[in-house]
Amino acid sequence: MRKKVVTLGEIMLRLSPPGNTRFVQSDSFDVVYGGGEANVAVSCANYGHDAYFVTKLPEHEIGQSAVNALRKYGVMTDYIARGGDRVGIYYLETGVAMRPSKVIYDRAHSAIAEADAADFDFDRIMEGAGWFHWSGITPAISDKAAELTRLACEAAKRHGVTVSVDLNFRKKLWTKEKAQSVMKPLMKYVDVCIGNEEDAELCLGFKPDADVESGHTDAEGYKEIFRRMSEEFEFSYVISTLRESFSASHNGWKAMIYNGKEFYVSKHYDIDPIVDRVGGGDSFSGGIIHGLLTKPTQGEALEFAVAASALKHTVSGDFNLVSVAEVEALAGGDASGRVQR
Amino acid sequence: MRKKVVTLGEIMLRLSPPGNTRFVQSDSFDVVYGGGEANVAVSCANYGHDAYFVTKLPEHEIGQSAVNALRKYGVMTDYIARGGDRVGIYYLETGVAMRPSKVIYDRAHSAIAEADAADFDFDRIMEGAGWFHWSGITPAISDKAAELTRLACEAAKRHGVTVSVDLNFRKKLWTKEKAQSVMKPLMKYVDVCIGNEEDAELCLGFKPDADVESGHTDAEGYKEIFRRMSEEFEFSYVISTLRESFSASHNGWKAMIYNGKEFYVSKHYDIDPIVDRVGGGDSFSGGIIHGLLTKPTQGEALEFAVAASALKHTVSGDFNLVSVAEVEALAGGDASGRVQR
Amino acid sequence: MRKKVVTLGEIMLRLSPPGNTRFVQSDSFDVVYGGGEANVAVSCANYGHDAYFVTKLPEHEIGQSAVNALRKYGVMTDYIARGGDRVGIYYLETGVAMRPSKVIYDRAHSAIAEADAADFDFDRIMEGAGWFHWSGITPAISDKAAELTRLACEAAKRHGVTVSVDLNFRKKLWTKEKAQSVMKPLMKYVDVCIGNEEDAELCLGFKPDADVESGHTDAEGYKEIFRRMSEEFEFSYVISTLRESFSASHNGWKAMIYNGKEFYVSKHYDIDPIVDRVGGGDSFSGGIIHGLLTKPTQGEALEFAVAASALKHTVSGDFNLVSVAEVEALAGGDASGRVQR
Amino acid sequence: MRKKVVTLGEIMLRLSPPGNTRFVQSDSFDVVYGGGEANVAVSCANYGHDAYFVTKLPEHEIGQSAVNALRKYGVMTDYIARGGDRVGIYYLETGVAMRPSKVIYDRAHSAIAEADAADFDFDRIMEGAGWFHWSGITPAISDKAAELTRLACEAAKRHGVTVSVDLNFRKKLWTKEKAQSVMKPLMKYVDVCIGNEEDAELCLGFKPDADVESGHTDAEGYKEIFRRMSEEFEFSYVISTLRESFSASHNGWKAMIYNGKEFYVSKHYDIDPIVDRVGGGDSFSGGIIHGLLTKPTQGEALEFAVAASALKHTVSGDFNLVSVAEVEALAGGDASGRVQR
Amino acid sequence: MRKKVVTLGEIMLRLSPPGNTRFVQSDSFDVVYGGGEANVAVSCANYGHDAYFVTKLPEHEIGQSAVNALRKYGVMTDYIARGGDRVGIYYLETGVAMRPSKVIYDRAHSAIAEADAADFDFDRIMEGAGWFHWSGITPAISDKAAELTRLACEAAKRHGVTVSVDLNFRKKLWTKEKAQSVMKPLMKYVDVCIGNEEDAELCLGFKPDADVESGHTDAEGYKEIFRRMSEEFEFSYVISTLRESFSASHNGWKAMIYNGKEFYVSKHYDIDPIVDRVGGGDSFSGGIIHGLLTKPTQGEALEFAVAASALKHTVSGDFNLVSVAEVEALAGGDASGRVQR
Amino acid sequence: MRKKVVTLGEIMLRLSPPGNTRFVQSDSFDVVYGGGEANVAVSCANYGHDAYFVTKLPEHEIGQSAVNALRKYGVMTDYIARGGDRVGIYYLETGVAMRPSKVIYDRAHSAIAEADAADFDFDRIMEGAGWFHWSGITPAISDKAAELTRLACEAAKRHGVTVSVDLNFRKKLWTKEKAQSVMKPLMKYVDVCIGNEEDAELCLGFKPDADVESGHTDAEGYKEIFRRMSEEFEFSYVISTLRESFSASHNGWKAMIYNGKEFYVSKHYDIDPIVDRVGGGDSFSGGIIHGLLTKPTQGEALEFAVAASALKHTVSGDFNLVSVAEVEALAGGDASGRVQR
Repeated sequence: MRKKVVTLGEIMLRLSPPGNTRFVQSDSFDVVYGGGEANVAVSCANYGHDAYFVTKLPEHEIGQSAVNALRKYGVMTDYIARGGDRVGIYYLETGVAMRPSKVIYDRAHSAIAEADAADFDFDRIMEGAGWFHWSGITPAISDKAAELTRLACEAAKRHGVTVSVDLNFRKKLWTKEKAQSVMKPLMKYVDVCIGNEEDAELCLGFKPDADVESGHTDAEGYKEIFRRMSEEFEFSYVISTLRESFSASHNGWKAMIYNGKEFYVSKHYDIDPIVDRVGGGDSFSGGIIHGLLTKPTQGEALEFAVAASALKHTVSGDFNLVSVAEVEALAGGDASGRVQR
Repeated sequence: MRKKVVTLGEIMLRLSPPGNTRFVQSDSFDVVYGGGEANVAVSCANYGHDAYFVTKLPEHEIGQSAVNALRKYGVMTDYIARGGDRVGIYYLETGVAMRPSKVIYDRAHSAIAEADAADFDFDRIMEGAGWFHWSGITPAISDKAAELTRLACEAAKRHGVTVSVDLNFRKKLWTKEKAQSVMKPLMKYVDVCIGNEEDAELCLGFKPDADVESGHTDAEGYKEIFRRMSEEFEFSYVISTLRESFSASHNGWKAMIYNGKEFYVSKHYDIDPIVDRVGGGDSFSGGIIHGLLTKPTQGEALEFAVAASALKHTVSGDFNLVSVAEVEALAGGDASGRVQR
Repeated sequence: MRKKVVTLGEIMLRLSPPGNTRFVQSDSFDVVYGGGEANVAVSCANYGHDAYFVTKLPEHEIGQSAVNALRKYGVMTDYIARGGDRVGIYYLETGVAMRPSKVIYDRAHSAIAEADAADFDFDRIMEGAGWFHWSGITPAISDKAAELTRLACEAAKRHGVTVSVDLNFRKKLWTKEKAQSVMKPLMKYVDVCIGNEEDAELCLGFKPDADVESGHTDAEGYKEIFRRMSEEFEFSYVISTLRESFSASHNGWKAMIYNGKEFYVSKHYDIDPIVDRVGGGDSFSGGIIHGLLTKPTQGEALEFAVAASALKHTVSGDFNLVSVAEVEALAGGDASGRVQR
Repeated sequence: MRKKVVTLGEIMLRLSPPGNTRFVQSDSFDVVYGGGEANVAVSCANYGHDAYFVTKLPEHEIGQSAVNALRKYGVMTDYIARGGDRVGIYYLETGVAMRPSKVIYDRAHSAIAEADAADFDFDRIMEGAGWFHWSGITPAISDKAAELTRLACEAAKRHGVTVSVDLNFRKKLWTKEKAQSVMKPLMKYVDVCIGNEEDAELCLGFKPDADVESGHTDAEGYKEIFRRMSEEFEFSYVISTLRESFSASHNGWKAMIYNGKEFYVSKHYDIDPIVDRVGGGDSFSGGIIHGLLTKPTQGEALEFAVAASALKHTVSGDFNLVSVAEVEALAGGDASGRVQR
Repeated sequence: MRKKVVTLGEIMLRLSPPGNTRFVQSDSFDVVYGGGEANVAVSCANYGHDAYFVTKLPEHEIGQSAVNALRKYGVMTDYIARGGDRVGIYYLETGVAMRPSKVIYDRAHSAIAEADAADFDFDRIMEGAGWFHWSGITPAISDKAAELTRLACEAAKRHGVTVSVDLNFRKKLWTKEKAQSVMKPLMKYVDVCIGNEEDAELCLGFKPDADVESGHTDAEGYKEIFRRMSEEFEFSYVISTLRESFSASHNGWKAMIYNGKEFYVSKHYDIDPIVDRVGGGDSFSGGIIHGLLTKPTQGEALEFAVAASALKHTVSGDFNLVSVAEVEALAGGDASGRVQR
Repeated sequence: MRKKVVTLGEIMLRLSPPGNTRFVQSDSFDVVYGGGEANVAVSCANYGHDAYFVTKLPEHEIGQSAVNALRKYGVMTDYIARGGDRVGIYYLETGVAMRPSKVIYDRAHSAIAEADAADFDFDRIMEGAGWFHWSGITPAISDKAAELTRLACEAAKRHGVTVSVDLNFRKKLWTKEKAQSVMKPLMKYVDVCIGNEEDAELCLGFKPDADVESGHTDAEGYKEIFRRMSEEFEFSYVISTLRESFSASHNGWKAMIYNGKEFYVSKHYDIDPIVDRVGGGDSFSGGIIHGLLTKPTQGEALEFAVAASALKHTVSGDFNLVSVAEVEALAGGDASGRVQR
């Protein structure tokens, strides 16, 4: 059941003060590389797929270090274009208790933001692929990147590849109006749509009828909006995660899926303490791709995805470094944390 | 609303084994500098005031490092006398769960403990100041330091400066009897008195009539003792924090204020996990100074102070490295710890 | 009440990625040395006893480092034989929240696994001793080590030394059948038997009659099985700990003791967060040895042991680096974690 | 002799793998802040001057950290404008033996590169100043920054401030042609010109007549070119350092000065091993400013500067953290490195 | 000129105390993975070849980490068999000045030492390959590994692959007699023989006629022995490095090559200080493979190899993380270590 | 030839910024424990003797950590008195190239400085001892410590113990006049006198007749002064080391011995680079004690001592962590630093 999975996006250098120290206290930064679609690729590689991450990175050693980070965890880097000036950066200060994590972006002018169609041969990239995933961040990076996203989607469709999107609205990258003008036309290529109710509203203009407040609503309240999204864009699946933020160290976590007929709500996880919340959504996307590719029911696929993303919160860095066996043990009910000797 | 705020006291070298390791395990110590009144000065600088810390430090590089730590966070060091032999030291082992933090003091014979009136020109120091803060630690260091405290208070009064004290009884520095003989005569200079019921008893001889047990009593039980303190010493404000110690990693936290007429009790915070509890009281004093200088009501001032000190528990080191915006976000009700992107 | 306490077993090099990082992420390993009986020896040294650890270690610097780790904490290393090729290793990845800790053993062919009777003079070792402790790991290492265990027990009995065992079944070292064939004949030397209901079943064949499920049963359910074990092997004491695993970061912890007449259940501790769970059982054994050697009742002995092992969960490394005073403060009821200044 | 010294330029975040590790090996970066003119300001602050660094930095915490780094070492940050998006970055890999250090710049679009005249009040900045220093990097950053340089020079002249420049040609920032078109018109404001023969050629078009090869020529060969530069631009002093690069770990170092009349060549230092070569030239500029402000002869000024910069090679980071006393001890002849107890 | 290069051998976990600390001082070990033939594979991957490393590694995370280390630097791991119990270990203490580095091996019973022919399909492995390299360590690990070496050589010859060996005698793994009995019969498969005069004597029985003392002899003294080796085993090339050990921090380094007709001696490098000497020989082998595959003359090939290995001494870890451009810059004469901006 | 060796003095907490960073740069300090006579004890323990270090240390964990540091390396701590307030501290900044190391002492009021005769039973301590060593630092600490030194010497003589002194004049602890008034009367107990010509002059008033300049004179120039010292105080041996300080990273090192009849000068060592120069003299004393106890001639004893101390310069920390075998390998002529596999 090993599949070729392709993702397209940006991988950034992430710089964070160690532990819970604040930006102004630190004289060293922990270095990892990550970004929405790269994180999904690593998850898929961990689950045994041939995961290809598509981006553009400078020739210099910082660019090479991003390539190496992907290779280390088994992601195929054959389709990464090299050139451009910058690796995008984000600074992350990890919060704790009532102090939130902070992100400072410094990603403008990165190599992928300035990449051209000429940098990629999407037909070669999509040939033989079983899945193509992108997120709302990719077209938000730049107009050029939005065009690349469109080209990749078209190629995917030409080659019969399943396409998933994580809507992932980022207010620092674009406005609601711009997002909708770009995202809505891309939905026709999408089979599997992932995103919470905020994303749905901001990217696709789907406003919940009733009183859906983030993190507090009854999951069933999402059913109607899923049905409408499913209808309008002919999605095979509409999926959303539901995070309860008690504090920076303690969250609740579950998810929902709708296949046009049935609506399924996952188990709920209580995550305490949280080691690293960044990449939680991406680890969910990685899990749902593996789940839908390999599990007999949407419910089992979703339980795999939500357990995978619960585990991600215990792993430092953007990447979700867990195995199928570990995810299945948790999905199967063992959250006791007993020592594995 | 930027004010000149002056604090007087000792800044020590703090040596702590990294993370939760024990003293006997460590082959390196984390180095920060801190001390009650220095910590208050840093808070005030962070909130945009011209905060001056007054002390004496040796000429050598360890003394200079203490100066640099203050300058780094914007504290004015113009009035720091240089000379003497030692920078006082305290060793801190950070506790966790049911294992308490441990402090070993090695502060005798420090430069400030042996400083003279000749080292400081208190009239110059107090000129133009809006606030002068000291704590019960300063006069406890040595008789010379007690004399310096008196001189500073007199100068403050000559210049019409508001004076606050954090009673802060330290049993390793003096006895209850000695404390009262020194502290009581100093109260006539004080406008704002901060201290819990233990401090009030040990420093000022105020024994609660009824059954006030630390951390468990109804806050209202403090009202009567506040009224009596207020009456006897003509304080403008009597203020106390109330800590519930569930474990070294989990505390409850709130505070009370009384302005001679009205008694106000703050919101309660549940802090879990605690990163660094040292300086929690000082961050409260820094917050109340800013609050009383800038907020329209004592209630708003107190809410600022208690939110500031709740946040301090998430910041490593003695200094409370938070901004007005961060404190107000928490005081305003957002303790969700959601990532700030 | 300082006694000569002897323990026999293996001390291993423990390699762990720092903090909560995963094995595959790490480019350094924290180094400590530990192992069931070595850990017990360190506890006894900390409580003021003349604790001797008996093992065999290579002449090279890694072997010497293990010796030094013991000496550092006051364990007597006079009876450690030197020679052989390897120091056994275990790799430990520390879990958090729902992600469990993982152990990878690489201990085959260690010096102690290949040691001979000729390496030790057990009569000299047991002379003047007040206590001899071993665990089910020692005879499981190799047939040679099982023979050493038998010889040590015989010498202990010749010298009138009290013998305790921690049953400690390890499924990676031997089968249930092999364990019983080795362990049962050794029970005739044992005065104090420590082990949970799983150990009792796997090592000694004691199956609970009724429905005793690990960590969830009423402690009283253990009484009957304790009575039967006590009868069959003429143990002076039968003792068990009871761990509730809510997550890798949060456990419940208590223990029970039976002296042939009375059954006593300790206080229950809620441990959150856990710093290092490895060595928790060993710290209990160390505590019960000190308790039975020095306390007037089995109840007081047990409370000391369970408080000691609760504290162990807050100490990194295998060794329980706590003092009698710290254990007694917790056993006496102060779990507030207030700063000790 | 404490003077107000002003410098104008960029301060960058410097990210370097620890020790001698390579970029691709590192999972943390050491963080310091530095840049040509900021480094000069720190030197001047260390020597007791009121050193003001003028730049623009974003409001966010990375910008604040740069401000804090300056404040920590006593640089006045009153004239730093806040705003813009980016703190410029440079990545530094520290070489050793025959492996050279590598620098990757990521400084385009920084706040200072996009700053306006409206961000600074140069008349206020230059008022009361005794010295203004800039380097060829500042106008090379952007056309806007070149315009700022010109405005600052004009204001300096209006206020009778001595102006020094370190020519500092950087081929990654501009071409020889562009450099000359910008730099030559700025020379009319300059009193003290610092730069090696390569800088002189690339920035000012001064080609040595004869065979001057970097690092190997007799220092006297520079005399003629100094005389010509002095004549054409009416410099009060022309100064150059002379580095011999035996390897990344071992350099020779000396300097020359010409005051229009006399030519003086300093002592030669053999630096082995080198800890951090970055900022070596800036530490020389800082030293020559202090030297010319306080020493009776150009020779003594130069010896101070060259000793200061020799010491810089032993200090990690961009900043030269040495005192007047340390520099004078070395300039006075003690290079024995005996322990100072 | 990208070629498929195959190497066969063991990759070990290397544990070293940080910096120059001694084994007994350290409470953490730096972790890298390395081993003769793995190191060669990394060099070849760095130079742009499709480098495949063939070995066997356990399924567990330590085995996986070794795989990841190879993948990170671009080595193909498709032919690595998974299974067995142990990753071989070596402990390395890095010497300095007159204190030598120390290695403690703990590699017995590793997965590759116990691997079978059934673990590898050598025909598939050698198909399309341009080069196969192994060292004298591989057959010395175990009799099984010696058999694997023979099978690999035969397959290489069947597929017309050039075969190189680095004789690399290791006295802790086998005796001179055993070495010769295994190595001599394998020489018939070898085209390129690398090894110093000690290796030649111990592995192949070639005793220099005259007075060749390691590190001090005139390189020309090697000519005759090269000629004899070349004749007896029909090697295309005989190659040797020549190290002068002045101290652990300072070595001289050069090499010689003989193609059956001409003898060429490389430039001499003076390496001071040395960062990491381990893998120096392997980096030479990697360099000579690239050199012979791509350079027009044996002299140019040798200069590439000796420059590559000189650079290796400045890179920490077993792997030589340098690029073709860096090697050629040094081979081309630039050893000045000037900063590359 | 294992002997009981006793040393008396102070062990301090040493705090140093990591690597070559400066005091003002550091936010952590490396922690080791050391002091002249403690360092000698560790050397003797390493060479297989029963080395007892006598001092007084506080009961708290910092005092305990000093005890543990000694135990770790095999020093017997049975005679260490516990009590008092402080562990003496010294701050060490490690120099490099022309930047010297700096020491800041903070040792006044330490437990040993305030210890009484009642703290020690010198007859028990000296019983069975073969050697007693102290240095000029011990009586310089305080008058009480000088009295302890006298009592220890008397007890040593009562028990027929050989007594050695390292004169070790420290100008921060006392004046030349005070030193002579204390030291001269103590010389009657001394058999072996170690100290350079500066020590001899400052402690004992021996001024060289001729022109003996530190580090540059011909060793033979010392002969006459040794003869005179030997005569006046009836020393069995007079011994001196001779250091040439080329830089903080590069020293020359040799020594001389005179037994009343013959004068012997050791080999000369060139030490480059130096890792840690502190404790170099103590490692020499430790070496000469072992040498005179076990070697047939004074020459062999001296060669052991000078090789031991040369090696010390490559070991970080105060303690010389080397074995007899390592010292003898270097004394025997192998300074090549070749890897020991």
